[in-house]
Amino acid sequence: MKVELIVVGKTDLKTIESLNIMYTERIRHYLSFDIKVLPDVKTPGNLTVEQQKNAESLLIMKNIREQDCVVLLDEKGSEYSSVNFSKFIESRTLEGKKLIFIIGGPFGFSETVYKRAQYKVSLSKMTFSHQIIRVIFLEQLYRAMTIIRNEKYHHE
Amino acid sequence: MKVELIVVGKTDLKTIESLNIMYTERIRHYLSFDIKVLPDVKTPGNLTVEQQKNAESLLIMKNIREQDCVVLLDEKGSEYSSVNFSKFIESRTLEGKKLIFIIGGPFGFSETVYKRAQYKVSLSKMTFSHQIIRVIFLEQLYRAMTIIRNEKYHHE
Repeated sequence: MKVELIVVGKTDLKTIESLNIMYTERIRHYLSFDIKVLPDVKTPGNLTVEQQKNAESLLIMKNIREQDCVVLLDEKGSEYSSVNFSKFIESRTLEGKKLIFIIGGPFGFSETVYKRAQYKVSLSKMTFSHQIIRVIFLEQLYRAMTIIRNEKYHHE
Repeated sequence: MKVELIVVGKTDLKTIESLNIMYTERIRHYLSFDIKVLPDVKTPGNLTVEQQKNAESLLIMKNIREQDCVVLLDEKGSEYSSVNFSKFIESRTLEGKKLIFIIGGPFGFSETVYKRAQYKVSLSKMTFSHQIIRVIFLEQLYRAMTIIRNEKYHHE
């Protein structure tokens, strides 16, 4: 299965970037995985929050094909335990589509992106910086793979 | 207010350690804050999970005073949004006690520690490595302070 994580904006902190690389390498032991970093929307003058969301969403939509399965990482999404998240991923695997997770910018997604997505997953009721959320997601994806393979990493 | 985070075992990853330091420095702009790292319990021969939990708990109990307010970071705890977590912290401030958050080892806490604690907080339904959970907690504590002070960091 091919899995992709789309994020908006580069990772600012070197420390977070190296954690991202570490988990990406671990995940690649299990599946074909890439992180696609979309450029921050340039804000000449004052874009409103709505305009910035729309510009980001346009860019996101350009990076999704019709046949892809799209999962937004979104505070309004369903919360899973790590075990149930691994089951969610396992079920998607069976569908055979490319699986794309998306972490939006600081202001979230436009309606267009919400409508396009098949699923919304929330990693926590809490709000994390859109930098930290990348590490959290990658650790969960890695953990999910170890759960699916029945490996030692995860304790109940 | 004095706030302390007690963790069991050193942070293995340098990258996580530097994130911890970064957030600790940010948090110290707002309050007196320290991380206390308790040594991993040495496991000569084969300690059972229960024995390891008990040994860790003994050590934790030695680092709590009777008058402290103890909050376990625990999967069985209550989940808060970031805003509600900031309200939780603000309420504790008013009580004037030293506030101690505790992240246990990989197998969780013994009954003794559960009984001693006033509160249990869960950062997510998901399970994170007990290294990553430190960064997550620190970012939330920092975020909580910016919410209490009505600063720019947190978007709704």
